[in-house]
Amino acid sequence: MTTSSRRINYQVDVQFGDCDPAGIVFFPNFLRWMDAASLNFFVSCGLKPWNELVKSRGIVGTPLLEIHTRFITSATFGQTLQIETSIVEWREKTFVQKHVVTRGSDLICEGSETRIFVVRDADKVGGLRGIAVPEDIKILCTGPGG
Amino acid sequence: MTTSSRRINYQVDVQFGDCDPAGIVFFPNFLRWMDAASLNFFVSCGLKPWNELVKSRGIVGTPLLEIHTRFITSATFGQTLQIETSIVEWREKTFVQKHVVTRGSDLICEGSETRIFVVRDADKVGGLRGIAVPEDIKILCTGPGG
Amino acid sequence: MTTSSRRINYQVDVQFGDCDPAGIVFFPNFLRWMDAASLNFFVSCGLKPWNELVKSRGIVGTPLLEIHTRFITSATFGQTLQIETSIVEWREKTFVQKHVVTRGSDLICEGSETRIFVVRDADKVGGLRGIAVPEDIKILCTGPGG
Amino acid sequence: MTTSSRRINYQVDVQFGDCDPAGIVFFPNFLRWMDAASLNFFVSCGLKPWNELVKSRGIVGTPLLEIHTRFITSATFGQTLQIETSIVEWREKTFVQKHVVTRGSDLICEGSETRIFVVRDADKVGGLRGIAVPEDIKILCTGPGG
Repeated sequence: MTTSSRRINYQVDVQFGDCDPAGIVFFPNFLRWMDAASLNFFVSCGLKPWNELVKSRGIVGTPLLEIHTRFITSATFGQTLQIETSIVEWREKTFVQKHVVTRGSDLICEGSETRIFVVRDADKVGGLRGIAVPEDIKILCTGPGG
Repeated sequence: MTTSSRRINYQVDVQFGDCDPAGIVFFPNFLRWMDAASLNFFVSCGLKPWNELVKSRGIVGTPLLEIHTRFITSATFGQTLQIETSIVEWREKTFVQKHVVTRGSDLICEGSETRIFVVRDADKVGGLRGIAVPEDIKILCTGPGG
Repeated sequence: MTTSSRRINYQVDVQFGDCDPAGIVFFPNFLRWMDAASLNFFVSCGLKPWNELVKSRGIVGTPLLEIHTRFITSATFGQTLQIETSIVEWREKTFVQKHVVTRGSDLICEGSETRIFVVRDADKVGGLRGIAVPEDIKILCTGPGG
Repeated sequence: MTTSSRRINYQVDVQFGDCDPAGIVFFPNFLRWMDAASLNFFVSCGLKPWNELVKSRGIVGTPLLEIHTRFITSATFGQTLQIETSIVEWREKTFVQKHVVTRGSDLICEGSETRIFVVRDADKVGGLRGIAVPEDIKILCTGPGG
């Protein structure tokens, strides 16, 4: 059974300092904004930010395992971008979050991120341990009619 | 006939400010370093940096069309990373550059970038036009025995 | 005669990736936001952004000559900051722009920037030449009753 | 009695992505490099990095209280900069660290930072408490003949 994820929008006003000598957004900034959109998605769905969630549930964040990004058109400063974020797949332990970056009707780029919820675990290398996606979080992120 | 690309190393000393509240490298910085490693590859192969090449040949740079990155292990400040960069595929107009980021014998992450050489073209949207990879550049980037 | 500058507000939502391993904003990001607030001030006063102004008036931007910043309290992600920007002094060729960064009633930091309007000048080192602050810009930036 | 500080050099290779649409280094990057040079100074003097020092001595770092930076000449990618860092004043609780950024014989910019050593203190706002500069650290940072 497929459940549909909520779709959350995050707005970015591109700044002068986000752009490179070619006059366009230096691409790692798109990844930075996708990371912000990723957390914004969960907070918009009702989760607390990581600095609070770590206290109540031990969840430190959702580190990135993989990212695949396609760049279609460039953007520059003075422009406003919209990032639409959704979860396109829940796997056993990981999930795939998708970010579609647009400027009006122009598609700028899109990224597909594989992430995992982690908790602190002193016994693990790096001190973090992946957990299965908590069911209540999955429900929070599921849209009406899902 | 396959030609093998040169393999160029680029070193990164991870700084405190490159890391996030989880204490590990904030991932867009890996993409920033791969971009630096990409240009470093061409300069190490004998090309001039973009700000000089634009004058002699009109080449503005090699914008990114697509990037696919896998993150295996985290890294933190005080550590030294090596990025080994090579070109794994020459296509008609684009090419695929690979970056393998290691810390000693640990694989940290690896990225595969599809890029294209562009020149200024006032008639094009964005003012840039992709060109076929220049043959002399292809030769410069080809390793001995290639 | 003293003229009073307009006061323009710029909002920043602090992101996870803006913070360092101590869990607080990595300070160069405050400078990045002050730079964004600086351009936002001029655009809010009625100027075009630099990429348009360079075409109509040759003005490339307002490079920084000096910055003095005091950090009073730290900030972290999930918080919203306000930056109030004004011009506290017009000198013959330069001007001093002040940014006061607050979170509610908390003063986070404040910065005082000396900047100069520049135009392209191929004869100059760096290709840029400072100009006296244009009178019409000074008027645009002056508040009611100034 | 004045003691002279050691002078430690830190090298920066300016990257394409460090530069803005004007083609020159986006200034907050200079502050980022000064922060790296600040920690590099202490590590070069024999201190452990903060992530190790916090375990042995509780010292979390040296947050910035104030920074004053003057920009003399611009820099661009493909250039190598040297940052010479020293401590110009030890006060009771704080100290002033100076960074001089040069490119060959050109002075690019210089920054003067007021910093303070802090330890974790759960009772304090922000969880950090400033301490007097430890005498052994002061000695480590003092040059021969100091």
